[in-house]
Amino acid sequence: MTLTGYTAPLSPDGRASIVPPPPWHYSGDFMIAEYRADPGAVAALLPEELEPAEDPGAVAAIFADWQSCSADLHELTDPIQAQYREFFVVVGARFQGAPVSRCVYIWVDKDFAMYRGWVQGFPKKLGSIQMTRLYPVGKATPRLEPGARFGATCAANDRQIARLTFTLEHLSATAPRVNDPPMHNTRHFPAALGEEPAVFELVRAGGRDREATPIWEGSAEFCFYNDTLEDLQAIAPKEMLRGYRFSFGYTVDGVDVVGQHRHPQRSREQA
Amino acid sequence: MTLTGYTAPLSPDGRASIVPPPPWHYSGDFMIAEYRADPGAVAALLPEELEPAEDPGAVAAIFADWQSCSADLHELTDPIQAQYREFFVVVGARFQGAPVSRCVYIWVDKDFAMYRGWVQGFPKKLGSIQMTRLYPVGKATPRLEPGARFGATCAANDRQIARLTFTLEHLSATAPRVNDPPMHNTRHFPAALGEEPAVFELVRAGGRDREATPIWEGSAEFCFYNDTLEDLQAIAPKEMLRGYRFSFGYTVDGVDVVGQHRHPQRSREQA
Amino acid sequence: MTLTGYTAPLSPDGRASIVPPPPWHYSGDFMIAEYRADPGAVAALLPEELEPAEDPGAVAAIFADWQSCSADLHELTDPIQAQYREFFVVVGARFQGAPVSRCVYIWVDKDFAMYRGWVQGFPKKLGSIQMTRLYPVGKATPRLEPGARFGATCAANDRQIARLTFTLEHLSATAPRVNDPPMHNTRHFPAALGEEPAVFELVRAGGRDREATPIWEGSAEFCFYNDTLEDLQAIAPKEMLRGYRFSFGYTVDGVDVVGQHRHPQRSREQA
Amino acid sequence: MTLTGYTAPLSPDGRASIVPPPPWHYSGDFMIAEYRADPGAVAALLPEELEPAEDPGAVAAIFADWQSCSADLHELTDPIQAQYREFFVVVGARFQGAPVSRCVYIWVDKDFAMYRGWVQGFPKKLGSIQMTRLYPVGKATPRLEPGARFGATCAANDRQIARLTFTLEHLSATAPRVNDPPMHNTRHFPAALGEEPAVFELVRAGGRDREATPIWEGSAEFCFYNDTLEDLQAIAPKEMLRGYRFSFGYTVDGVDVVGQHRHPQRSREQA
Repeated sequence: MTLTGYTAPLSPDGRASIVPPPPWHYSGDFMIAEYRADPGAVAALLPEELEPAEDPGAVAAIFADWQSCSADLHELTDPIQAQYREFFVVVGARFQGAPVSRCVYIWVDKDFAMYRGWVQGFPKKLGSIQMTRLYPVGKATPRLEPGARFGATCAANDRQIARLTFTLEHLSATAPRVNDPPMHNTRHFPAALGEEPAVFELVRAGGRDREATPIWEGSAEFCFYNDTLEDLQAIAPKEMLRGYRFSFGYTVDGVDVVGQHRHPQRSREQA
Repeated sequence: MTLTGYTAPLSPDGRASIVPPPPWHYSGDFMIAEYRADPGAVAALLPEELEPAEDPGAVAAIFADWQSCSADLHELTDPIQAQYREFFVVVGARFQGAPVSRCVYIWVDKDFAMYRGWVQGFPKKLGSIQMTRLYPVGKATPRLEPGARFGATCAANDRQIARLTFTLEHLSATAPRVNDPPMHNTRHFPAALGEEPAVFELVRAGGRDREATPIWEGSAEFCFYNDTLEDLQAIAPKEMLRGYRFSFGYTVDGVDVVGQHRHPQRSREQA
Repeated sequence: MTLTGYTAPLSPDGRASIVPPPPWHYSGDFMIAEYRADPGAVAALLPEELEPAEDPGAVAAIFADWQSCSADLHELTDPIQAQYREFFVVVGARFQGAPVSRCVYIWVDKDFAMYRGWVQGFPKKLGSIQMTRLYPVGKATPRLEPGARFGATCAANDRQIARLTFTLEHLSATAPRVNDPPMHNTRHFPAALGEEPAVFELVRAGGRDREATPIWEGSAEFCFYNDTLEDLQAIAPKEMLRGYRFSFGYTVDGVDVVGQHRHPQRSREQA
Repeated sequence: MTLTGYTAPLSPDGRASIVPPPPWHYSGDFMIAEYRADPGAVAALLPEELEPAEDPGAVAAIFADWQSCSADLHELTDPIQAQYREFFVVVGARFQGAPVSRCVYIWVDKDFAMYRGWVQGFPKKLGSIQMTRLYPVGKATPRLEPGARFGATCAANDRQIARLTFTLEHLSATAPRVNDPPMHNTRHFPAALGEEPAVFELVRAGGRDREATPIWEGSAEFCFYNDTLEDLQAIAPKEMLRGYRFSFGYTVDGVDVVGQHRHPQRSREQA
């Protein structure tokens, strides 16, 4: 008998793995606020392979309320294995001259989604993410109509991370732009000893079978809180752009390696 | 200056109260499994003012995924104050000859909903409640169509409480019946000293401005787990009836007192 | 058969009750920071039966890490039923000329402790409470010695509530004073309809079989955060006094009613 | 400026990293139950580099309540960054003829501890872990004396995983044996695409500056629950051995790579 599994823990039948093998199907509700931050602070979060975007301070603050499953869909009838929410911060950049995007911070509320994220280059921490939902009946829900108001918050480690509120105005003619180009993240796994990573790859995220609802657009307010473990104030909004809301689904098979990073400490010594 | 508030903690402006004053608006998604349990065990959960229902072992296991708010709707843009899920067990009964229902056990995942429940006669404990959701796009979601499968689970105090799975068949011509008659619960608040309650009222729940989507019906499986703090095996399914899924909204202003219970210990002494 | 239980949910054997009947035994670790706030803001949190204390702005911010159980101790081998942490804010006052104390805000992390608190007049909300612990070995622990540093935090509803840090100096000759006089809280349970409470009693907490370790004293820093549902900035520290750490155990049988409050809304109309 | 950090997320000053660089200091309380399971099922959880132990069905079920910190100890005054609990299952084995141990399953309640575990070859999932604690005063605590009873539970994904209860008898002359030899775990990180891991190393855990209290020994009961995502019933107890309780501290600098695993799928094809 041989141990098997897409991830650890390995087991004779592979079922103990924290993440099942791809493909992974996703359906989710999205709220996005775009804004401009200090371009220098955004550039400081890019690895040396990426250059600043044409709009160098552009940032997207993204809240997502997901249901996901693997190929046989079995997680859908055991929803604790399927549902999670996340908040992530995406910046624009360029790679080899072409527009790309990059997730610089991300929080999620389930372990399988956290580890599946690390495998794809999303540096996920655990957090609590809350988003206003839509219901078809009753008074305790906004409707998809001008003037409807939505909110979202993220907290982690008992610290407030971010808050978004926005007001729908109309269906969007433009769609969110910051996170539209292909995401270029970093897969990072430390070595057994020492600070040089064992895995340190620049990867391009993809996905297929993309499907989305019409996108509502409106005015957004967004803030980061002060007492966070990360320096989020560095990329706080200086100018708010637009807010967006829609639902989105796709399927992911993995990510593509487009480069190997040099180790930052080593790079620093050479600089 | 005077302390004020619908509930404690009282404060000069009343805003610290764990529950804001009614009316409370609710919008929610529901999954219900009806079944028959041992009629004697169901009767044993009724106070002496209530008699067994015409179908004396009928039980409804209900999962609800709620958004709620108070009159000014301010909770809707701060969703941690608005959203909660709950699982509850409703049995049929008769009061003064008329069909009623009664919530015998209930678990919820937020403190404001827990205390608001106690005020209305729902004996809420904290739990974790999970329910399959519907999304408009992507492969990680069931659709409202025959054959679609949904699941729901409840756990509390790190113990598994209940699991429901069901399969949609068609729009329902009958609707769920067990929890349809007016709910007759017990408001119970212990005295400062001793075991006789300070508040021990039989109350009738109501609500107005009810609104619901069409109801899907199908075949359901439901179980209680063994290692629970309550004797849930006593009311385990002996015969499964039907499962239902729909969305529902209404507004609650409070409950009506229809009687005062005698103290159970005192009743027991007299028996 | 008759329904029984100290609290709801009532059941044939009473075991479903969210709180078992008293006596309740408690063992806990305490961290307390005393400070002075604006005396007017402290007075504004007192019911009309209580007058300001001799030191009218004195406040105690108290973190406690508890294990508790009922008479047969059965919770101790199922620790999820026994353990909880809480953070509470106690102010000084006078009742009929004698020094008393009063808990004005409190957060706790378990449902049984929340409801048991409401029964005793503690207006508990759910929160997450963290406190540095002592271990007998290893480097990842402070020791009970001068210079040792401890911290504690409270968050609720994904909002930061409070943070305490303090540094041990020496065994205390004085002990904490604000929460020393008998606590006079309010048992409050709303009516079935309307805003006038069904239970609205001024109660005195007691307890017996008190036992404590020697008390360490030191310098403390304490803050409330800004974005809270309660107006905690009103009672923020203006002058820090001392911090204390010790362990404490006692047994509670209930509380004594010492008066009936008039309804605040009614009082307000008369004012 | 260059991005830095021991782990992702990388940032200009490195502080955003989910795990700070080693050394990591640990102080913890332990409860261990040793038992014998089916030797074939234990062997089925060993990678091909490890052979069964001399006592081939021996298993240790270990609960630990930790405080940990990095070199400057800053986490100790912000306890949410320092404290976590975990439950893990360790089996005996042999590597190159010498006795070793191996962690086959593990659950933990914090993200930093989860990812720090993956770096060291512990396949950590999130869970809720509860353990009876000792307090110096009060009635709500066991004492370190014969007859004292302790309990511990683990749940994950709203499923019950394991329960331990044990009764102290006397100070131990032998100490727990299963987890005593050096732990040989597997560092496993999937590739960007496909099922073959990018990192798949057999590593030996070490640690220095070990310190422990005297070890109490007694009779233990232990069970795994049925409805788990992993096949835990395969390694359920067939014969209980002894239970142990003690506190332990040490410091970890990383782990040593002692071999490269072949990919299990590839091994399977060759078999």
